Amino acid sequence: MTTNNESTGLNIALAQINFLVGNIAANVNSIVQSATYARDALKANLIVFPELIVTGYPAEDLLLRKDFIEEANNAIHQIAESINDIALVVGFPELADGKLYNSAIVFHNGVTLACYRKQALPNYGVFDERRYFTAGTQPCVFEFNGTFIGLTICEDVWQKGIIESAKDAGAEILLTLNASPFNLGKAKQREEIICAQVKEEQIPLVYVNQVGGQDELIFDGASFIVNAQGDVVYRAEEFTEQIGVVKFDGNTPIPGQCAPLHGKIDSAYRALVLGIKDYVLKNGFKGAILGLSGGIDSALVLALAVDALGCDQVEVVLMPSRYTADMSNEDAILEAEALTVKHHIIPIEPAVNAFNGMLTDVFADTKKDTTEENIQARSRGVILMALSNKRGKLLLTTGNKSEMSVGYATLYGDMAGGFAPIKDVPKMLVYELARYRNSISSVIPERVLIRPPSAELAPDQIDEDSLPPYPILDAILERYVEKDQSAEEIIAAGFSREHVTRAINLVDRNEYKRRQSPPCIRITTRAFGRDRRYPITSGYRGIKEKS
Amino acid sequence: MTTNNESTGLNIALAQINFLVGNIAANVNSIVQSATYARDALKANLIVFPELIVTGYPAEDLLLRKDFIEEANNAIHQIAESINDIALVVGFPELADGKLYNSAIVFHNGVTLACYRKQALPNYGVFDERRYFTAGTQPCVFEFNGTFIGLTICEDVWQKGIIESAKDAGAEILLTLNASPFNLGKAKQREEIICAQVKEEQIPLVYVNQVGGQDELIFDGASFIVNAQGDVVYRAEEFTEQIGVVKFDGNTPIPGQCAPLHGKIDSAYRALVLGIKDYVLKNGFKGAILGLSGGIDSALVLALAVDALGCDQVEVVLMPSRYTADMSNEDAILEAEALTVKHHIIPIEPAVNAFNGMLTDVFADTKKDTTEENIQARSRGVILMALSNKRGKLLLTTGNKSEMSVGYATLYGDMAGGFAPIKDVPKMLVYELARYRNSISSVIPERVLIRPPSAELAPDQIDEDSLPPYPILDAILERYVEKDQSAEEIIAAGFSREHVTRAINLVDRNEYKRRQSPPCIRITTRAFGRDRRYPITSGYRGIKEKS
Repeated sequence: MTTNNESTGLNIALAQINFLVGNIAANVNSIVQSATYARDALKANLIVFPELIVTGYPAEDLLLRKDFIEEANNAIHQIAESINDIALVVGFPELADGKLYNSAIVFHNGVTLACYRKQALPNYGVFDERRYFTAGTQPCVFEFNGTFIGLTICEDVWQKGIIESAKDAGAEILLTLNASPFNLGKAKQREEIICAQVKEEQIPLVYVNQVGGQDELIFDGASFIVNAQGDVVYRAEEFTEQIGVVKFDGNTPIPGQCAPLHGKIDSAYRALVLGIKDYVLKNGFKGAILGLSGGIDSALVLALAVDALGCDQVEVVLMPSRYTADMSNEDAILEAEALTVKHHIIPIEPAVNAFNGMLTDVFADTKKDTTEENIQARSRGVILMALSNKRGKLLLTTGNKSEMSVGYATLYGDMAGGFAPIKDVPKMLVYELARYRNSISSVIPERVLIRPPSAELAPDQIDEDSLPPYPILDAILERYVEKDQSAEEIIAAGFSREHVTRAINLVDRNEYKRRQSPPCIRITTRAFGRDRRYPITSGYRGIKEKS
Repeated sequence: MTTNNESTGLNIALAQINFLVGNIAANVNSIVQSATYARDALKANLIVFPELIVTGYPAEDLLLRKDFIEEANNAIHQIAESINDIALVVGFPELADGKLYNSAIVFHNGVTLACYRKQALPNYGVFDERRYFTAGTQPCVFEFNGTFIGLTICEDVWQKGIIESAKDAGAEILLTLNASPFNLGKAKQREEIICAQVKEEQIPLVYVNQVGGQDELIFDGASFIVNAQGDVVYRAEEFTEQIGVVKFDGNTPIPGQCAPLHGKIDSAYRALVLGIKDYVLKNGFKGAILGLSGGIDSALVLALAVDALGCDQVEVVLMPSRYTADMSNEDAILEAEALTVKHHIIPIEPAVNAFNGMLTDVFADTKKDTTEENIQARSRGVILMALSNKRGKLLLTTGNKSEMSVGYATLYGDMAGGFAPIKDVPKMLVYELARYRNSISSVIPERVLIRPPSAELAPDQIDEDSLPPYPILDAILERYVEKDQSAEEIIAAGFSREHVTRAINLVDRNEYKRRQSPPCIRITTRAFGRDRRYPITSGYRGIKEKS
């Protein structure tokens, strides 16, 4: 086969692909197939892959395994030998002289043209790169088809100085390999920061991000190319695998597809759907199950799960108790029917009665308290886990971020499950997402959107008996959990001392519950999990007790 | 009061104290009280406190809170103003020009003599110091009572070059502030490495470590002083709060108390007792409860809990099923009686029958599998959590490291609980610890030590039906989990491919369970938790499937 795509200039493909952490063999196949497609179908003469794509990102402590690193380094040779007539830029963990680098290697027709070592290693938020990698210290520029191309990796282009040093080293175009996780507004922020730097340095930049869900993290893709004037001239779809190509006239990218950036609610919804889909499929589950209460949280999770997996892959269980309102059951059935998923109804009374009977003697002379409420929630947990075990389906928990912040949930009860899709979604955003989903097609009864939220674990219970109203609670939590504001700052911003005290005390005291909760899909700038690492044993109180 | 302890030379106190992460006010009180005691009772003229003692260690993401850091920096002034006539060396998170340093400050009669910034910031294993701190770049030496004293902090003295640079800067004695966590053999290793460096540089070193449990970590104390010849001339008790003092003749420490280092099993036992005690007390629980099965794991946890908390603070529950052998019940009762703890017997049959009845319809046409076993384990979990909730007592889980490695445990069943004391103790070490405890006084029936282990979730079930024999399993797990050896290396060391394949496959596939397990007490060099950070979603297989 003859290819003419190398003859002159640059035709750069951006491989916005969904890879699997740890499966090097599969990733190598995917790299070779993508490069072949880019060369043959898109006439690309250079293809850029995301950061550390050979191992997937983040591979965490797999990077400490000698066998794993050897396999990844061997894989690079295998890729180099597998394809000709197109240059590949591939991210991998480079082992050299006993040190590990987060590197980008370039090869063409089996020859290595360059290898760049990431200089800026993020070690904050969800990132632990200094746990694994040694920082590079040099820019790296290579010549290809008459153009001098500089290499950078992710964090490099968020910091001042590294783009400049690549330009100083002779780069006429910059390639950036990324594993840049999503949060609300991230795609816009990313472009603003990088375009501003590019504009200052007057050098076009090709930004390639991976796409897909990996435990807590969502990678949104949204790869782009910005010209030397700082204008975005190409943008890949968000949340979608896509191999795009852009032709360069000298150093100038010729404007191509520019997929629009989605709005906040739209992108949150897409992120959650992708997160569920990838967690279920990459972990080999035969679908998902969840408990449907008739409340807004489980209604939203059901819609997300069906949009992610299809209605035939999702199964729901209604588990009413004596405290469950009739309308809760009615609404839950309407939700299941609207999305045509299989539903079961298993009242929990027999288990609850059995436990209460078994505990009669040891609980003699004690008063009823949350213990009895928890028994109800845990009886549901046992039923759901039994179904999950028997069917091989992932149990999705339906708790939201507001509840998980203040510990308004039962360990091993409604918190039971393998994945917590909306654990990073505050309650008010749950409502917005539900309304958004209904605007596409009506799947959640209007009554569910307007009823006061209730755990239905005691007669006439509503959440606001124990918690500040959700609009207030969510605003306080955003300040305390995401922005690390102090109680006094939050009060000074106009919130009542009573609400702030209540909310903060609950957040401080419930770290132990969150520590045992399933992983979520991170959509904010501070999710519970790897992103917020608090001690359980802690004398810190965000608000001091009155003495 | 007149003190003459400052007149000449050095009389250095080592404050091996148990502090509380996050409670700055309490820590300040403790620092001032300790210094007062050292000055008045021990005639010390200088007292050295452990690393970051003002906030406790590790304070994790509390260090990202502005209010917390401000409070810690204000506390330093408060300490300085609270006590005279003794110099204090105190570890704290120093905020300067918007950067945070892991620092040691020295003050005397309200005047700051020196402030050193830690140069070597560990970011491996359980350590995340580069997440929070900027590294210092300079040695720091101050003069006190005619002697030039150099400051170092923990990791500094494990690395080559930093002791040397302090000596080059004029230090005649070195002080090292530490928060050095325990693992088996750590105290010996610590002294060997540091004494070797001291011997090379010919400079005496005062090593002060904190003591106590903090979530997963145990700090063992074992503070020591080594003279310029590299000999240990003072050692504090391990696992015990102790303020010792050593007089110096010029630069030479005059030999004092030298508490012996405990052996492996003895120190493991003490670490576990301290871990339980501190978790329960620091978190304000009203004691502990656990399920007693008649097996070796719960027998050991019971003994540890009673040794940590006293028999009146511990309550146990026997929850027999149709599969529980009579001798299991008999032995469990003997264990409870030997340690004089309150026990309840709550057969689980009513709950199990209720669940099986509730699931009859949805499980029609399915075969029995582990689902039904899990229902038994989870029914026990509900009972135990109900007791924990009602009593305000911490539920201790009794699973060992071998089980947690291979996932031989039920999520929300026997894994339910707030703290997992032996989650980092391999099964064979469980036996050693049980025999060690019996050697002090007989508390575990001999039969429990010799019966084949069984989960008793099915008729005539024993663990070795599903798992390699424990001596083999533990050896494989140590290599795979703690030493990151590859399957081929382990097989080459003489283990059968079948055993290695079985063990490694189970470890790889059960990360999701471990992620939701309660924190443990770390006693090995690689505990599950903050120490081993593996992705759940992972295509890595330590051993390749045959295709």
